[in-house]
Amino acid sequence: MRKTLKEIAVLIDGEVVGDESIVVTGIAGIQEALPGDITFLSNSKYLPFIDRTQASAIITSRDIKSAKKPIIRADNPSLAFTKIVSLIVPQEARPKGLHPTAIIGKKVVLGRDVALDAYVVIADGTVIGERTIIYPGCYIGADTKIGDNSVIYPNVSIREGSVIGNNVIIHSGTVIGSDGFGFVTVDGIHHKIPQLGKVVIEDDVEIGSNVSIDRARFDKTVIGKGTKIDNLVHIAHNVVIGKNCLIVAQVGISGSVTLGDNVVLAGQVGVVGHVNIGDNCVVMAQSGVSKSLSANATVWGYPAKPVDTAKRTNACVQNLPRLYDTVSELKKKIEKIDNKSDKGQ
Amino acid sequence: MRKTLKEIAVLIDGEVVGDESIVVTGIAGIQEALPGDITFLSNSKYLPFIDRTQASAIITSRDIKSAKKPIIRADNPSLAFTKIVSLIVPQEARPKGLHPTAIIGKKVVLGRDVALDAYVVIADGTVIGERTIIYPGCYIGADTKIGDNSVIYPNVSIREGSVIGNNVIIHSGTVIGSDGFGFVTVDGIHHKIPQLGKVVIEDDVEIGSNVSIDRARFDKTVIGKGTKIDNLVHIAHNVVIGKNCLIVAQVGISGSVTLGDNVVLAGQVGVVGHVNIGDNCVVMAQSGVSKSLSANATVWGYPAKPVDTAKRTNACVQNLPRLYDTVSELKKKIEKIDNKSDKGQ
Amino acid sequence: MRKTLKEIAVLIDGEVVGDESIVVTGIAGIQEALPGDITFLSNSKYLPFIDRTQASAIITSRDIKSAKKPIIRADNPSLAFTKIVSLIVPQEARPKGLHPTAIIGKKVVLGRDVALDAYVVIADGTVIGERTIIYPGCYIGADTKIGDNSVIYPNVSIREGSVIGNNVIIHSGTVIGSDGFGFVTVDGIHHKIPQLGKVVIEDDVEIGSNVSIDRARFDKTVIGKGTKIDNLVHIAHNVVIGKNCLIVAQVGISGSVTLGDNVVLAGQVGVVGHVNIGDNCVVMAQSGVSKSLSANATVWGYPAKPVDTAKRTNACVQNLPRLYDTVSELKKKIEKIDNKSDKGQ
Repeated sequence: MRKTLKEIAVLIDGEVVGDESIVVTGIAGIQEALPGDITFLSNSKYLPFIDRTQASAIITSRDIKSAKKPIIRADNPSLAFTKIVSLIVPQEARPKGLHPTAIIGKKVVLGRDVALDAYVVIADGTVIGERTIIYPGCYIGADTKIGDNSVIYPNVSIREGSVIGNNVIIHSGTVIGSDGFGFVTVDGIHHKIPQLGKVVIEDDVEIGSNVSIDRARFDKTVIGKGTKIDNLVHIAHNVVIGKNCLIVAQVGISGSVTLGDNVVLAGQVGVVGHVNIGDNCVVMAQSGVSKSLSANATVWGYPAKPVDTAKRTNACVQNLPRLYDTVSELKKKIEKIDNKSDKGQ
Repeated sequence: MRKTLKEIAVLIDGEVVGDESIVVTGIAGIQEALPGDITFLSNSKYLPFIDRTQASAIITSRDIKSAKKPIIRADNPSLAFTKIVSLIVPQEARPKGLHPTAIIGKKVVLGRDVALDAYVVIADGTVIGERTIIYPGCYIGADTKIGDNSVIYPNVSIREGSVIGNNVIIHSGTVIGSDGFGFVTVDGIHHKIPQLGKVVIEDDVEIGSNVSIDRARFDKTVIGKGTKIDNLVHIAHNVVIGKNCLIVAQVGISGSVTLGDNVVLAGQVGVVGHVNIGDNCVVMAQSGVSKSLSANATVWGYPAKPVDTAKRTNACVQNLPRLYDTVSELKKKIEKIDNKSDKGQ
Repeated sequence: MRKTLKEIAVLIDGEVVGDESIVVTGIAGIQEALPGDITFLSNSKYLPFIDRTQASAIITSRDIKSAKKPIIRADNPSLAFTKIVSLIVPQEARPKGLHPTAIIGKKVVLGRDVALDAYVVIADGTVIGERTIIYPGCYIGADTKIGDNSVIYPNVSIREGSVIGNNVIIHSGTVIGSDGFGFVTVDGIHHKIPQLGKVVIEDDVEIGSNVSIDRARFDKTVIGKGTKIDNLVHIAHNVVIGKNCLIVAQVGISGSVTLGDNVVLAGQVGVVGHVNIGDNCVVMAQSGVSKSLSANATVWGYPAKPVDTAKRTNACVQNLPRLYDTVSELKKKIEKIDNKSDKGQ
């Protein structure tokens, strides 16, 4: 790409301070940028780099009035930057059309401009929307529905009856709709409980690599609109996740848990079965949630407690060696007093 | 399906209380059921739903004498229900026969009615029993043995020399027989220790999606008969798991650990290498097992302790802020006493 | 194989004590070995087996002077053993040549003796070095570079632009170069931040099964030379790992973390984003690292602390019930003293 700062400012509804005729040809982070690149500054932690970066121009917030280099002031520099990235960066070459080795079952309906790459298998009765791209080695089970503009990366397995919305991204190795983990134990033998439900993934969801999302026992496991899931996450049967949640890597959510909207589960968090986590809750990394949480709670620890309580408790724990010393001293003093008082009598 | 309660009662050895001529056409959970469905009640927690469910009939335990709706009394309602499910529900259409794109190596022996779906690769010398079904994209390494009636879902990788029993279910993305993690470090360089053993999976085992089970260094890694493994579990080389264990999602078991029979490892548990966990042990979620456990232990925490001890310790921890207050008060009192006693002298 | 102890001693630069004409035909661990096998003893824990093993000969350290059975004394018995294994054991039959179903894109460059097995897909512009072997079902994205003598097991997905060195081993189900987890949140909606960087895997790295390594936002995610990664590990975008590290199963490393050389992260460890872990650090199992660590630190716990501190703190925690008792007693004594002193006045 070759764009002037003036052209870019128009794209992102920003204002140039400095020479708006300067041409940029690439984009990069503020620390890695080279001359010719445009970069951005949103995290104030990187403020010292504003005059140190080698970039030719910087997209900044409106708080910044000027800098040594030309800047483009915008309402949200990060968002502005992601906007120009999609315009500027040559996107990876994506699969197009139906590869001759793609196997398409009976009664499959494909929207316009669907791409099915090599060795994709689409089972009977599946419906795929317009412009959806499926990379090599994916398996799409029978009677699955996939919306428009979705991207499914290589070697994803989607089991029968799944429902996947528009603008969904699913990364490699992920499994959607595997059987939930449910057994009836009689005389020590575990009998499989059939898992008859399905998985529903709403619009604008992104799912990382090697994620496992189980189908419901009955009814459905749901990932709400706009929710983003990181790598190696486990979502058990009948879990219902609200909208715009962030589920960070290696989180495990047990069966029948419900999450409200805008919930954040940080890395390696575990949630026991059948609890409800309210809107806007934040569960800090590695915590174990053993009880339902009402909306807006921020919790930490194992078992997870409100973060203020958990931090106070943790400070107490870290101080224990000193507490033991204090108690020992008190003990000695009391013995001394006791002795004195005995003598005194 | 269309079945009368009378017909269903015969199938599950139950007794109808109410109109046995009622016809049911579907099945569902007690909360989701609609008119025409049959449901079941096994967990007493759901007892209030017995008169609220929209189901046309309910399978109950023998304790329930009658309800507003017709019931079928059975010894184990859950188990009875799973029985009728398999009779009633139209099973997913499963692959049949040998797909023309399945690649079958030399000296492969296939039992009657084996199904190998599209793009399956079976390496040389492998033997597969009757009615076993292998979904698209699976790789079965050389000299592997798979028994009868097993089901291997899409994109599973089974490395050479593995032995898999009858009625085994393996979900998508799972890897059986990858090399164990073993190195000899000389002058800071890690030299690979060849992993020459194999993996043996006995009859009636179910393995979730994206599970990793490593082959042994020598000898074998074993998953015992009837054991059920959830998603994203790691089982290292030379682990030996007994019969009818439940290994919940994201558990990690280090090398050379042995588990007895009927062991339960709850979600995200970790077990250090070379320890033995006795029969019937239960390790609660997120615990870390650092020592061997004798049979029938229930443990919790990090490091894991007997659950009573762990709960008492945890209660103590949660109470620490108050303990600190108490100790402060005692300190003040003692200072006061000390002062008095000084004055008194 | 059929080799005399004399022949083996030459291969490993060892010294036979006992009958050097004895022929061995197999190898095994000291507990599993049968007559005809050679075994080895490196861990002193197994010393009692030296006279109990059924093996025909034992490779030992130089400390051992003799045994009932013939021994071969060597500098490093483990390493010596792995050496002879590679000479002695018939290696698994590996794929050879270009399978007719392998799909090779435009402008792909393949070195001599590359093996691409069934249903492998190599996208445009990829370069693969000599003798590298790619098993069935793997996807190699566009413009990827793979060095010489690397082995990629079935169903691995490598996204576009990745750089992989020589002698690299990648186990099944692993995903290299999936998008990092990065979003800009505006008014509660998470907007994807394009992930424009790549993954670089240096020489001699081994990566277990079902691992996820994300591409960088800009620049690159790096796995340093000689580092070994176990199963189900998550490595986020922009992580830079040094040389000869050991990353054990189910570890999660958040974005932009850097690790020095020779770092060990034990099983299920989590590391928060943007911290640095110095050379030779050891993080014990299940720990959570929340701050940077200077070189040579050994830490444990959640949050992770220097191991001595953490152990002392943990001992204090385990002793809490007794501390509570002690404090109760002190309280009673003080009350008694208080009463006395009141009476005394």
